[in-house]
Amino acid sequence: MFFNRREVTIEWGDCDPAGIVFFPNYLTYFDAATNALFLRALGLNKYEMTRKYGTTGIPVVDVGVRFFIPSVFGEVVTIESTVVEIKRSSFRMRHRLLKGDALAVEGHEVRVWTGRDPADPEKFKSRPIPDEVVAKLRGES
Amino acid sequence: MFFNRREVTIEWGDCDPAGIVFFPNYLTYFDAATNALFLRALGLNKYEMTRKYGTTGIPVVDVGVRFFIPSVFGEVVTIESTVVEIKRSSFRMRHRLLKGDALAVEGHEVRVWTGRDPADPEKFKSRPIPDEVVAKLRGES
Amino acid sequence: MFFNRREVTIEWGDCDPAGIVFFPNYLTYFDAATNALFLRALGLNKYEMTRKYGTTGIPVVDVGVRFFIPSVFGEVVTIESTVVEIKRSSFRMRHRLLKGDALAVEGHEVRVWTGRDPADPEKFKSRPIPDEVVAKLRGES
Amino acid sequence: MFFNRREVTIEWGDCDPAGIVFFPNYLTYFDAATNALFLRALGLNKYEMTRKYGTTGIPVVDVGVRFFIPSVFGEVVTIESTVVEIKRSSFRMRHRLLKGDALAVEGHEVRVWTGRDPADPEKFKSRPIPDEVVAKLRGES
Repeated sequence: MFFNRREVTIEWGDCDPAGIVFFPNYLTYFDAATNALFLRALGLNKYEMTRKYGTTGIPVVDVGVRFFIPSVFGEVVTIESTVVEIKRSSFRMRHRLLKGDALAVEGHEVRVWTGRDPADPEKFKSRPIPDEVVAKLRGES
Repeated sequence: MFFNRREVTIEWGDCDPAGIVFFPNYLTYFDAATNALFLRALGLNKYEMTRKYGTTGIPVVDVGVRFFIPSVFGEVVTIESTVVEIKRSSFRMRHRLLKGDALAVEGHEVRVWTGRDPADPEKFKSRPIPDEVVAKLRGES
Repeated sequence: MFFNRREVTIEWGDCDPAGIVFFPNYLTYFDAATNALFLRALGLNKYEMTRKYGTTGIPVVDVGVRFFIPSVFGEVVTIESTVVEIKRSSFRMRHRLLKGDALAVEGHEVRVWTGRDPADPEKFKSRPIPDEVVAKLRGES
Repeated sequence: MFFNRREVTIEWGDCDPAGIVFFPNYLTYFDAATNALFLRALGLNKYEMTRKYGTTGIPVVDVGVRFFIPSVFGEVVTIESTVVEIKRSSFRMRHRLLKGDALAVEGHEVRVWTGRDPADPEKFKSRPIPDEVVAKLRGES
């Protein structure tokens, strides 16, 4: 399965009065990590995905995160992201945020491949993930 | 000119490791205050403005803020917003954030009434503010 | 168990290019909802809790959220928050975000009652939740 | 005067329903750019500055930004930051956000070198910027 690693610098504005990353911001890091993985796996960003595949996006329907070690301003952490499961129209990402070798935060996202509902173009509907995209996320092409 | 007042509670996630509101968040408060003023003045939110007037929005082209007194989590502050100047296709907002009677933060925004460029619908272009909108922002109707 | 309900207006800056709330911002709403519930249950905000009980906070160690219906700028939603479980030094919150009667987002947070580690005042350590706080969160006093 | 250049990738969560960077986020970029410049100029981050010089920070007292060209998700922009003026206890930063050669956003921050007020350690007060820091910001050492 496709895997990506990136470094993130903890910024002042990411942290709260306790001096640690305000926890919703980890999900912001993870969202950026998923987008970075897709860019590398498909060679396309979301807008280019829309134009090529007609998808309206890959919205998150389920997310879970466990927090083990806090991070503070100025630290540089590593985020390792993996596609861990691909179903017909959804897939599951795992993100691990590491400080050196220590696992600081771990989370998952379930995302759905979405397009316009033919019955009502104002609405979105899950659609099968194109085979070509599946192959790339599996690291097979 | 149209004037609006609203209370804002300073949230934990708005504050930085110094324990005070992270300064870009004041602009987020002011943006929400401008939207609230328009909703009251016109009876329309941005989406409804788009449908009624064909505008693509009122983007900010110039902003300035001075910070006198910091605010911390749990405080309830007042934001007073006024339309201070209306030109052909732009207008100027003034926001004053008060703690009790004390002026804590003061800022302005210059915003432009924008529509699609007839020559290139992918681009946006300033357009005259409709008379009806001007009258409402002046508090004349 | 203690329960709180509050209305939240979806702001422009909370939403992403898909026009819907950027999903990490739901956790920001939920964090504010937990703080609001504590303020009502204990009559103290976090800073006052620190002074009264010597706690250093109630950091989140586990969070999970499911997203059913998106929300857009201008909508006013309701967040219902409940303390659903209290253990020796941790507790679990449930948040339900409603649009009218429809459940749009549902999430939980596990938070730990934390104080300074006597062995190393630079570090934090879980501590038993004071009986008085437990009673108030149970709605018994 | 000290100068720093950095690249910033526009993330999905930085953008609003108009598809462009939500304008307060430019100030977040600029704050990070100032911190990055200080780290390079002094070899110290804010926490290390506090320990070495006893400062409580460099809060912004005045900010102004002009927006010429919007930026969208996926773009990589350059931020050029310069210390443009140093006074006794304050200094002025200029930030220019470039898309290729085009100036997209330009802003300034006035920041104050701050320490605890000897008369009331709960309060902050401006203090002279240490000569050593001035020399480094001037690029003289």
